[in-house]
Amino acid sequence: MSVAAAANQQQNLTAAESDPQTLGWMQGFPPPQDRTITFQNGSFRSFPELRWAWSNIRQLVPTVNVWRGAGPASVLPRADHDIGASASVTMDGRPMTFARMLEETYADGIAVLHRGKLIYERYFGALRPHKPHIAMSVTKSFTGTLAGILIAKGKIDPQAPITDYVPELKASAFGDARVHEAMDMTTGLKYTEVYTDKNSDVWGLRRANGMAPIEPGYEGATNIFDFLCAQQKQGEHGKAFAYKTVNTDVLAWICRRASGMTLSDLLSERIWAPMGAEEDAHYHVDRIGTESGGGGLSTTLRDLARFGETIRNHGRFNGRQIVPSQVVEDIARGGDPEKFKPAGYTTLPGASYRNQWWVTHNAHGAFMARGVYGQGLYIDPKAEIVIARYASHPAAGNAANDPVTLPAYMALAKDLMAGG
Amino acid sequence: MSVAAAANQQQNLTAAESDPQTLGWMQGFPPPQDRTITFQNGSFRSFPELRWAWSNIRQLVPTVNVWRGAGPASVLPRADHDIGASASVTMDGRPMTFARMLEETYADGIAVLHRGKLIYERYFGALRPHKPHIAMSVTKSFTGTLAGILIAKGKIDPQAPITDYVPELKASAFGDARVHEAMDMTTGLKYTEVYTDKNSDVWGLRRANGMAPIEPGYEGATNIFDFLCAQQKQGEHGKAFAYKTVNTDVLAWICRRASGMTLSDLLSERIWAPMGAEEDAHYHVDRIGTESGGGGLSTTLRDLARFGETIRNHGRFNGRQIVPSQVVEDIARGGDPEKFKPAGYTTLPGASYRNQWWVTHNAHGAFMARGVYGQGLYIDPKAEIVIARYASHPAAGNAANDPVTLPAYMALAKDLMAGG
Repeated sequence: MSVAAAANQQQNLTAAESDPQTLGWMQGFPPPQDRTITFQNGSFRSFPELRWAWSNIRQLVPTVNVWRGAGPASVLPRADHDIGASASVTMDGRPMTFARMLEETYADGIAVLHRGKLIYERYFGALRPHKPHIAMSVTKSFTGTLAGILIAKGKIDPQAPITDYVPELKASAFGDARVHEAMDMTTGLKYTEVYTDKNSDVWGLRRANGMAPIEPGYEGATNIFDFLCAQQKQGEHGKAFAYKTVNTDVLAWICRRASGMTLSDLLSERIWAPMGAEEDAHYHVDRIGTESGGGGLSTTLRDLARFGETIRNHGRFNGRQIVPSQVVEDIARGGDPEKFKPAGYTTLPGASYRNQWWVTHNAHGAFMARGVYGQGLYIDPKAEIVIARYASHPAAGNAANDPVTLPAYMALAKDLMAGG
Repeated sequence: MSVAAAANQQQNLTAAESDPQTLGWMQGFPPPQDRTITFQNGSFRSFPELRWAWSNIRQLVPTVNVWRGAGPASVLPRADHDIGASASVTMDGRPMTFARMLEETYADGIAVLHRGKLIYERYFGALRPHKPHIAMSVTKSFTGTLAGILIAKGKIDPQAPITDYVPELKASAFGDARVHEAMDMTTGLKYTEVYTDKNSDVWGLRRANGMAPIEPGYEGATNIFDFLCAQQKQGEHGKAFAYKTVNTDVLAWICRRASGMTLSDLLSERIWAPMGAEEDAHYHVDRIGTESGGGGLSTTLRDLARFGETIRNHGRFNGRQIVPSQVVEDIARGGDPEKFKPAGYTTLPGASYRNQWWVTHNAHGAFMARGVYGQGLYIDPKAEIVIARYASHPAAGNAANDPVTLPAYMALAKDLMAGG
């Protein structure tokens, strides 16, 4: 079989067939050479290797801890309810169940909260309840929420020029942009983020943020800050939404400068410790110790669910107001769907993007944190549901998940509202 | 000032002068270029940079978690007692106090337990109570204790050839050695471990275990297993103690093969969770995910103290027998001082090395775990004392610490035994 044919066959492996334990990835001491995943050769980013890697990222790259604090974990009350048979119809018209949806979309784990109770929790692949899984761009919604907290405290002015906080960005694309434009991703940037294109600028960001090796002779930025300072403008700021991770990295920098804290300490102090996280989280860091605020957070599934429940409860959880309620309400209200529309997300008609969250504007007012390869946090205020999900889908883009997952979430919400 | 003169001046910085916060190392977003510590340029290994790095190693290299489990932390009862004025005389005849000893030997933290109570706990430099600090070769005593547990359970036979567990070592120096010879470091190896010599084999081990960058064109081993398989014999096995870290890495491999577990999971299951550790620990890993069992563990100071107290109590702690008592007794009895003597440790007259622990054979039967740059766990059974200590001394070898620390520990023991 040719290499291409073998690769193609691997791409077609189902979730069960690509289980890293079944395939023997990183099993044994040492693992067999053809079952070894390394950072250096880039294999961790390929399917099916990523099925192991997204649950073990700290073994591949340097990280910084997000401390859960010394207190007890907050209680997540349980009320087991097997929702596996909840029936839906995919966007392309196929009948589906909740359990089958998890398989088809390569879930590594799912936790469903209904009215604050953990009704359904499953783990697959290499994920375990106490192990952090990389959140990918779900990280952005944490950064956006931290920025919201700092805005509520008067430490960041969303209308201020970005250069008020990071003057070094003066000569970059961000030199004439405002904080809220980075928060809502409406800056005009030359930067491209096309995961399937090896020449896309996102690869430069990955080299800079430490998630891709640097080849000898590489002349691009080797840390996040230098990469941000080199971004060039294209088009106008404030006109249209364009999903570009560098906005979040800029926002993370604004948070650091405004708080005087690392992003990891800020997350620990403001959210992780007060919400009574069960386990520490971590960010992967670049070569000078900077957290990737755009995609580098890893958490356990249950802690992601706790964060979702905090947001669903207007910022209140574990007996205290963790996120000011107006921060959550600003997110839930959403941004301008007209600015979102030109981006062409066919699976998210009528949606908007606000403060690093995706807002559906559907009948339930659902909003989401989303990350490549199927990471997600789905909050349905009307149905009082939070769905935390980690995954390792063969395809990066969520267009591969949405047609199956989003109808399943909506069907589940209706079932639960009907008492089903 | 010449570079050499500047370097020399830095070498002479006191603990207070070299405080990483005071010097501004890794402070700011981003830190100034001349105050940035990176893995790639090797600066983390120089003084005073290492004063920051030994408390932040996971930001520099990949790591694997040692889970503390889901239970509560075990209680370390407190009975504050300011022993800072405890007086001693250094091996070179200078009057000293306990507090001054900590400064002179660049302690990052010290925790003293007396009869199971935490009487004295101090943090300096970049260390904080909840942050793990690299234990360096104190790691070896954890590996030795885990091996002891597996021996007690009949999973490892100390008299068996190493190749019974790791046949791939057949053609190496370990091909005709027995397990106990690796445990007691009496194998005959060509490998040299001279920290001040850039050509010493220890640098090859560091490249292999991921603690030193690999230069383009480097043809040596790029993972621990390959490095071990390439070790050559010199002299005879079983004749004399020679401190060579590769023995511990071989022992760690025997533990993995005998238990079917990674070293991190083994430590978590057998020691970290049962002893009720306060925080997770971690190992740094090589490029294929193997823990450095010879020097890669990082723990909080208090958890190191808990482990010391477990050993002092013949393996019993947190209401359960964690390490079989005969494992501890075998360690405490020590090895053969005649085999130790030729190694020429002038600060440890009459001592021996047993199962990866240093045994003083002094009047109190004290024994120790020791690591470069001043890491240590000191157990004095007669005085019922445990001293856990992390440090970032400018010099790697403990000959720089022993003349000041060991008399201070003995003086403190006498003070506390006298009720002082």
